[in-house]
Amino acid sequence: MATVALTLFPAGRTLQVDPGVTILAAAHAAGVDIEATCGGRGRCTSCRVKFAAGIVPPPTIMDELQLGDALVREGYRLSCQCRVTDPITVHASPPVDDQSFQILGAERPSLPVRIDAGVTKTLVHVSLPTEEHHQTSDLEALLAVVGGTPSDCAPDVVRTLPQALREHGGEATVASFGSRILSVEPGDTHLLAFGLAVDVGTTSVVTSLMELASGEQLASVSSLNPQAVFGGDLMSRIAFAQFDAGNLRKLQTRIIGLLNQHIEQVCRDSGVLAKWIYKVAIVGNTCMHHMLLGIDPSYVGLAPYAPVMRHPLTLAARELYLKVNPEARVCLLPIVAGFVGADAVGVALATRMDESSEIRIAVDIGTNGEVLLGSREHLWACSAPAGPALEGAQIRHGMRAALGAIDRVSFDGRDLTLHTIGEAAAQGICGSGLIDAIAVLLDAGVIDWTGLIDLDHLDRLPLALAARVIKRGDERAVILARPGEHGATQELLLTQDDVRQVQLCKGAIASGAAMLQRIAGVPEDKVAELMLAGGFGNYLSIASAIRIGLIPAVPESKVRYVGNAALLGAQLALLSETERQHAEQIARRIEHVSLAAHPDFQDVFVDCMNFPRP
Amino acid sequence: MATVALTLFPAGRTLQVDPGVTILAAAHAAGVDIEATCGGRGRCTSCRVKFAAGIVPPPTIMDELQLGDALVREGYRLSCQCRVTDPITVHASPPVDDQSFQILGAERPSLPVRIDAGVTKTLVHVSLPTEEHHQTSDLEALLAVVGGTPSDCAPDVVRTLPQALREHGGEATVASFGSRILSVEPGDTHLLAFGLAVDVGTTSVVTSLMELASGEQLASVSSLNPQAVFGGDLMSRIAFAQFDAGNLRKLQTRIIGLLNQHIEQVCRDSGVLAKWIYKVAIVGNTCMHHMLLGIDPSYVGLAPYAPVMRHPLTLAARELYLKVNPEARVCLLPIVAGFVGADAVGVALATRMDESSEIRIAVDIGTNGEVLLGSREHLWACSAPAGPALEGAQIRHGMRAALGAIDRVSFDGRDLTLHTIGEAAAQGICGSGLIDAIAVLLDAGVIDWTGLIDLDHLDRLPLALAARVIKRGDERAVILARPGEHGATQELLLTQDDVRQVQLCKGAIASGAAMLQRIAGVPEDKVAELMLAGGFGNYLSIASAIRIGLIPAVPESKVRYVGNAALLGAQLALLSETERQHAEQIARRIEHVSLAAHPDFQDVFVDCMNFPRP
Repeated sequence: MATVALTLFPAGRTLQVDPGVTILAAAHAAGVDIEATCGGRGRCTSCRVKFAAGIVPPPTIMDELQLGDALVREGYRLSCQCRVTDPITVHASPPVDDQSFQILGAERPSLPVRIDAGVTKTLVHVSLPTEEHHQTSDLEALLAVVGGTPSDCAPDVVRTLPQALREHGGEATVASFGSRILSVEPGDTHLLAFGLAVDVGTTSVVTSLMELASGEQLASVSSLNPQAVFGGDLMSRIAFAQFDAGNLRKLQTRIIGLLNQHIEQVCRDSGVLAKWIYKVAIVGNTCMHHMLLGIDPSYVGLAPYAPVMRHPLTLAARELYLKVNPEARVCLLPIVAGFVGADAVGVALATRMDESSEIRIAVDIGTNGEVLLGSREHLWACSAPAGPALEGAQIRHGMRAALGAIDRVSFDGRDLTLHTIGEAAAQGICGSGLIDAIAVLLDAGVIDWTGLIDLDHLDRLPLALAARVIKRGDERAVILARPGEHGATQELLLTQDDVRQVQLCKGAIASGAAMLQRIAGVPEDKVAELMLAGGFGNYLSIASAIRIGLIPAVPESKVRYVGNAALLGAQLALLSETERQHAEQIARRIEHVSLAAHPDFQDVFVDCMNFPRP
Repeated sequence: MATVALTLFPAGRTLQVDPGVTILAAAHAAGVDIEATCGGRGRCTSCRVKFAAGIVPPPTIMDELQLGDALVREGYRLSCQCRVTDPITVHASPPVDDQSFQILGAERPSLPVRIDAGVTKTLVHVSLPTEEHHQTSDLEALLAVVGGTPSDCAPDVVRTLPQALREHGGEATVASFGSRILSVEPGDTHLLAFGLAVDVGTTSVVTSLMELASGEQLASVSSLNPQAVFGGDLMSRIAFAQFDAGNLRKLQTRIIGLLNQHIEQVCRDSGVLAKWIYKVAIVGNTCMHHMLLGIDPSYVGLAPYAPVMRHPLTLAARELYLKVNPEARVCLLPIVAGFVGADAVGVALATRMDESSEIRIAVDIGTNGEVLLGSREHLWACSAPAGPALEGAQIRHGMRAALGAIDRVSFDGRDLTLHTIGEAAAQGICGSGLIDAIAVLLDAGVIDWTGLIDLDHLDRLPLALAARVIKRGDERAVILARPGEHGATQELLLTQDDVRQVQLCKGAIASGAAMLQRIAGVPEDKVAELMLAGGFGNYLSIASAIRIGLIPAVPESKVRYVGNAALLGAQLALLSETERQHAEQIARRIEHVSLAAHPDFQDVFVDCMNFPRP
């Protein structure tokens, strides 16, 4: 695999490093000193670097925790967490910008996110009654040490007491959440406390295992949502569940089954036992939320699209049959409206939009994406049902961003140039490749502004490119790869239908952003920052996204990848009860804009379906 | 079937009535006026009678509710509730004794038990959102009408909202317990609110279905505890469960399965739907309580016999898989000690022992009985593990008090005279028959004070009786019935082993009472009342019970049947939250006396195993 250039200041050295190595490891290997007080575990800020050139990668949760959102937005990262994938230039241990600390200081005292997961584990020694005339019980003996009342201890925990209090002669570790006793474990296990952050998307589900005391991510896993066999988009999934308890149960069982597979896997990967997982924070859109809870989403799919519940819900893991500690607190973030769910709240929480003095836009790209716009003055949100095209579904040779996916497409003046993930043999095309391909073909004049693959002006094209534009029967298409090209074993096409699917998708997102801008009265030049969220967002070419009109035409420098911000929001809620409570305030502050009900929407949507004219 | 004499004052008439008819019905049929303001439904006190002669039957819950414990103890009963089974003489509508009202007035204002089950049902009209820009949810729309916070509504109830709030256009009935929403039902169901009182005994389980608003019992059912196949007494059942989660699970599943059968049956008998049952009050000894909850009782069976928990527990029916309303509150009464359980608390609650100015003793006769002694000054309790002999188990021809059981035995100077339940062909002998038989045989000199069946002095007996005393191989026995006698199809014996079993049984009960009397310093002449509790107690001959030393030798007039007082306690807790809370105070007040630990116990027990010398 090719090496990547990493330029380090103040040393002024450029290193050729293997992709995937952390900046800290690369620097140390080359003898460049970067201080790492915590030993490179993401527990301090000493190894921070500031990006001077190159694509700034999405922050990790450790970046957010240690550096705070303000520094993160200015391009600071922890070099121990940040892996080199593209050519970059960074300053090691830069002086912290005074102003940013002022902003930080004004809005959040000391560290921006203090770990405060709400779960405590305490080693206790319980004296069990030895004489018969003592009128007491195991539970009372425990409460005499840890305090609280019998109702703080669920019957499931009471059941474990006889053994837990005797196995190590009364030495036991009590896990609690507030006053509630979650678990009583024989012996000393007080260092073992973990949690899960989960993003249940319409198409993808991501689970992240974290150590609650340090905030360190120990493992993570991502899969397709297995409900997809019952419908790729929300509406078809709602139709499947509609008024049919059996089908609803199937959907619920599928997603819970998947989460339990995830739990098994992250536990296996990390060596953590599932019983040590005491808290789970979950985000997801309203439908995913309802289906996970087994709540009939029928009316979410019918005007006025009211959710059945919106409040932040905390329940015991056993109530959801999640195979972590049965008493673990499962916290679902709150919901704003039928199509602006807990995932949007997670994005707002992670991006600190509600604390921003300037207007920012967050676009969460996903099958059921959302657009948020606003500042600390006001927050608006709308749904942006992009559909699964950018995740490779409903595209002739579409695939997820996996090995062999065409993820970048460019034009060298003569012909298309492709890049595949892992530089493996081309298997299909993923979302970033689709957007690149369409941007390139728009520029080349192969696709016109209405989205039509233009067969009438092939003579203006270089021969190699012109040879790729075909019509078979009634179908227009562009041949991305012929058998043998880039290792492809079959012809890989971008069809006219594929272009239409992308148009629908980008139309949904672009019209959402356009409508919010219109309602809030915010033209492009008033937008201080455009944040691309969603696992997918990371790999997107910003230039291409602007070229096809997926995102508003702001200067590229104002666009920032924020990674899977919904998941990041769940991670914040997992690690900090303060953040979790803040999510509730955010949910109450967000004003939901119902696009379909707006008189301008049809025009805006039709307009946004088209591509921007050059 | 023979009629029974019912003598009514002040009319001064004696009626011959069919057994099982109520006093009120019999009087009305004969043209004797008894006022019945409520129409004979147990809802007022106008039809009360006072017993002048004959056995006063145990009070019903309606007697307790309407008349109060003080009047009940003086022999007042509601004639609409009281069925004639034995010759009796009663005064209709007697003037209420002034003193009794004073006692009543001093200790409980107005009615002694005010119905206050804690369950309320309210008809509401919920306005669902009709416009999309309303940011709300079904749950919020409901709470806007009924008040409260989202956490008052469990996810299981939230799940029902979409349908419940739409089926009747927003008209729905909300059942709640305190602030907790138990159920939201489409339409108007506010008159339908029921509850269950349950007594889980080692050998028998009784379930009673009551209307919560009126306190009326609509149906009841009693069965053998199906756990008995895993061990007849507690210790063998604990041994079965000990440290084996699978076996514990079996025991739990059995009892829950039985309760669900009971629920089905009382619902079928009454026409009540199980979903309208919102509260369940349960009593049972510590072991039954723990096993019902799936709590390992191993340490209850090992010194110092500490329970795992003792506090009054309220949980949702779904947590116990009880097939009533899933959110119904299941309230388990509190526990005193390892062998003084919620059943003893129920007895104390129902008998008002904690309010009595005089010393009273309650003997709860059952496989795992208890003895309570005390007054409002102090309450003592101990376990009296009688074993199942009096319920017919471990007795050669023992059986429960069912059709064909020999329930009374007397001696006519020449031979034994038997009575069978329903005057049917003799099938076996039940507890009251056993006690009678032994009392008679003691008096006749067939059994000596050590319990030995005496073969050496047969010549002193009438020939007919002497012919019944036999020795076969090493076994001594008394022939109660030969084939053909009393319709018996086989020889029915009382064996030497049977006598020993009864001695063990009565030794346990008698030594319990004797020890409590000794510890409290209460000789027989200081005992104001001796109450016989337990389903079995009703049928017992008091004279025989005193003769064999089963109960302390107090004058017969001081002995009162109180019926299944443990169940009555559960019924009180079901119908009144005040009573349920009072049960908790009682549990805290009761001092558990651990007999085995007491230095005098061995002597007392050995002494109590013997029969009193005439």
